[in-house]
Amino acid sequence: MRPSVTGFDVYDIRFPTSEQLDGSDAMNPDPDYSAAYVVLRTDGPARTEGHGFVFTIGRGNDVTAAAIEALRPYVVGRPAPRSAADLAALHHDLTHDSQLRWLGPEKGVTHMAAGAVVNAAWDLAAKTAGLPVWEFLAAMTPEELVSLVDFRYLTDVLTRQEALELLRAAEPGRAERARLLRAEGYPAYTTSPGWLGYDDAKLVRLAKEAVADGFAQIKLKVGADLDDDVRRLRLARAAVGPGIRIAVDANQRWDVPDALRWMAALAPYAPHWIEEPTSPDDILGHAAVRAGQPVKVATGEHVANRVVFKQLLQAGAVDFVQIDAARVSGVNENLAILLLAAKYGVPVCPHAGGVGLCELVQHLAMFDYVAVSGTREDRVIEYVDHLHEHFTDPAVIEGGRYRAPRAPGFSARMRPESIAAYRYPDGPAWLARRPAQEVIS
Amino acid sequence: MRPSVTGFDVYDIRFPTSEQLDGSDAMNPDPDYSAAYVVLRTDGPARTEGHGFVFTIGRGNDVTAAAIEALRPYVVGRPAPRSAADLAALHHDLTHDSQLRWLGPEKGVTHMAAGAVVNAAWDLAAKTAGLPVWEFLAAMTPEELVSLVDFRYLTDVLTRQEALELLRAAEPGRAERARLLRAEGYPAYTTSPGWLGYDDAKLVRLAKEAVADGFAQIKLKVGADLDDDVRRLRLARAAVGPGIRIAVDANQRWDVPDALRWMAALAPYAPHWIEEPTSPDDILGHAAVRAGQPVKVATGEHVANRVVFKQLLQAGAVDFVQIDAARVSGVNENLAILLLAAKYGVPVCPHAGGVGLCELVQHLAMFDYVAVSGTREDRVIEYVDHLHEHFTDPAVIEGGRYRAPRAPGFSARMRPESIAAYRYPDGPAWLARRPAQEVIS
Repeated sequence: MRPSVTGFDVYDIRFPTSEQLDGSDAMNPDPDYSAAYVVLRTDGPARTEGHGFVFTIGRGNDVTAAAIEALRPYVVGRPAPRSAADLAALHHDLTHDSQLRWLGPEKGVTHMAAGAVVNAAWDLAAKTAGLPVWEFLAAMTPEELVSLVDFRYLTDVLTRQEALELLRAAEPGRAERARLLRAEGYPAYTTSPGWLGYDDAKLVRLAKEAVADGFAQIKLKVGADLDDDVRRLRLARAAVGPGIRIAVDANQRWDVPDALRWMAALAPYAPHWIEEPTSPDDILGHAAVRAGQPVKVATGEHVANRVVFKQLLQAGAVDFVQIDAARVSGVNENLAILLLAAKYGVPVCPHAGGVGLCELVQHLAMFDYVAVSGTREDRVIEYVDHLHEHFTDPAVIEGGRYRAPRAPGFSARMRPESIAAYRYPDGPAWLARRPAQEVIS
Repeated sequence: MRPSVTGFDVYDIRFPTSEQLDGSDAMNPDPDYSAAYVVLRTDGPARTEGHGFVFTIGRGNDVTAAAIEALRPYVVGRPAPRSAADLAALHHDLTHDSQLRWLGPEKGVTHMAAGAVVNAAWDLAAKTAGLPVWEFLAAMTPEELVSLVDFRYLTDVLTRQEALELLRAAEPGRAERARLLRAEGYPAYTTSPGWLGYDDAKLVRLAKEAVADGFAQIKLKVGADLDDDVRRLRLARAAVGPGIRIAVDANQRWDVPDALRWMAALAPYAPHWIEEPTSPDDILGHAAVRAGQPVKVATGEHVANRVVFKQLLQAGAVDFVQIDAARVSGVNENLAILLLAAKYGVPVCPHAGGVGLCELVQHLAMFDYVAVSGTREDRVIEYVDHLHEHFTDPAVIEGGRYRAPRAPGFSARMRPESIAAYRYPDGPAWLARRPAQEVIS
């Protein structure tokens, strides 16, 4: 008997990160890093589980959990997915319900919820295969890989046939690149020094530590105050020297004219890229920012779906595509985005941090290297040293590089004791923070 | 004592419209027209209420209701809004919560929820002023109107000063246009003949009835099958003659190459516009469709926010801007969109139908005529004769024109007996539809 999905457990998990200023930036002054988390349980002797989640920053995590709940009927009772065909069918069913689609389409809470469930199914299928997700993907044929992609709204730029040709062209050397990954890992950069809430001394100390730890790139949050940003970037540049890349990240704080003015002032300190200079929906705005100042442009962590990524590439609006593992509809849609970036020859430098995003997205970047782009040149995965202790297979960084994950699955499993402690609002970590009278009542 | 908002009641209301094929199109074969509905209650002697809602098509209406619930803390306890300043502050608070913003930003379920609450506040403020919303808006000064708009991400195309100038230029003649509106109403078109689930005979009969009723424009759903669409459009053209406009609507069914092929085949029957030829996120795709075939392009009912509308106009992607009253963040964001359209000289032809959308959007189109664009030329509001009986101040159509509403408020109040009957899943209309054993258990 083939196992079926028999359980669908949804959790609202929140960490009180706003108590420190870790994670603070120009748009997000006090995030409580959170996960709307789903566990697919199965029958069968192994009782294999699939874990997935949406990353949020606090309020509204309950709304996202409700959106995941709405997907239960598409999953429970289904044979446990294990093949590309299973995962393609599930992705289709989760993103093409005509009534739920009205709530996007393919954007916002409902789309992120579909991504959590899709990713949980990938975790489950990869565990069943006994492979980490990056190897599970890299073992698929080009035909299987294109079968996973929803080409709707892409065919003016990328057809199934073109995607197949891209993947076939990258087939030679897959094994060698996988071997290199296991030996050398994948380059990372760190955002840990650059949170906006840190004072200058902490910024300088952490920037130097990052270089000592082997990182060749760091990132600073900017966008709230130009004089502060000039001073902080100058200090960081002095701390790390000219050979280390310093990216800056405005977290959508600016209009186009602000971005041009700000980056003209920051350009003398040679920032590697300006990330999220304006609204993630503003394709033409990003193109104007890229054309109007000398610093390269990166975006993607808040880009809603493959259709917007397609246009960012069509419009020549970005130098770096920053996929996020848990905003679009999971592995399947990220595969579409990797293929679009490969077609345009634009490097993919994933967004990470948050809760568990490093754990997930490393698999996608490594798969991209092995089977899509075929290169690590100009590519780097974000790393934030934050909340990894809550995962059973945390991302491992050595010498400024992600080690290739070896455990089967998507590295997505949160420790049961963390889930229990940080459940909102009734986990002990939250009960302990309530005002006394509220606990009594 | 100034009244405060003391209550915030949220309802999941669904109508079993999928039992007929009213509302069926190429992407939405079986909608159950629904509303995630909110009532703001106030104290004070008048106990004035504000009503607002998100329109959905069934599943997920509960998720949208949960997103409205998440906004309760921003509303309850607040002085009842009555001025432009109050409504600007409320709109800001509902759309700028940094944690909730992560779930969009400004798109999908959370943004639509903000729109429902903003619109409920407008209903409340206009009732307090004793005016229908269109007159309440048209009585504001240009300075008050621009204060309502969030110009973030717009200033590369429209600054506050430019908006002020547009509004000042339209000040002369406001009173005369309001008088004309009260005398003549505002032109409508009807989608009632064209649902995809209707057979040819019903299509022809309803098309002729529409013309007899005074409509100068009808609309047909297309996109599922090209031969069917050619036949249906031919029949409709024969039924109404050359002097009646026939718009066609693909409801996002196509990729760009499909749209070009399809419209080349339909063009001989002189469709007035092609609506939603592709993804509402695909600005460059719409521009390509507009450039690549002879029929004018319309879109907007699924456009997520002002940033996407801005780009559709920048890119020359649309001939008609179709605002929706209940998808963006309410009156305030629609005011931004009306100003953007006015700057580009593109006519606004609102989307309506659904549940209560005709009731809401007529106010915005009429305000646009009185105080923004200053013209009804090439403008027309969609009308669908559907579910109006559930509203206490239903839209009134006479001779193919919307009558100007006279009752104070936003015409948004659903009859209490309709709310009671169609509450999901426990209203009598739904209990009666459950399988017998489910009711027993």
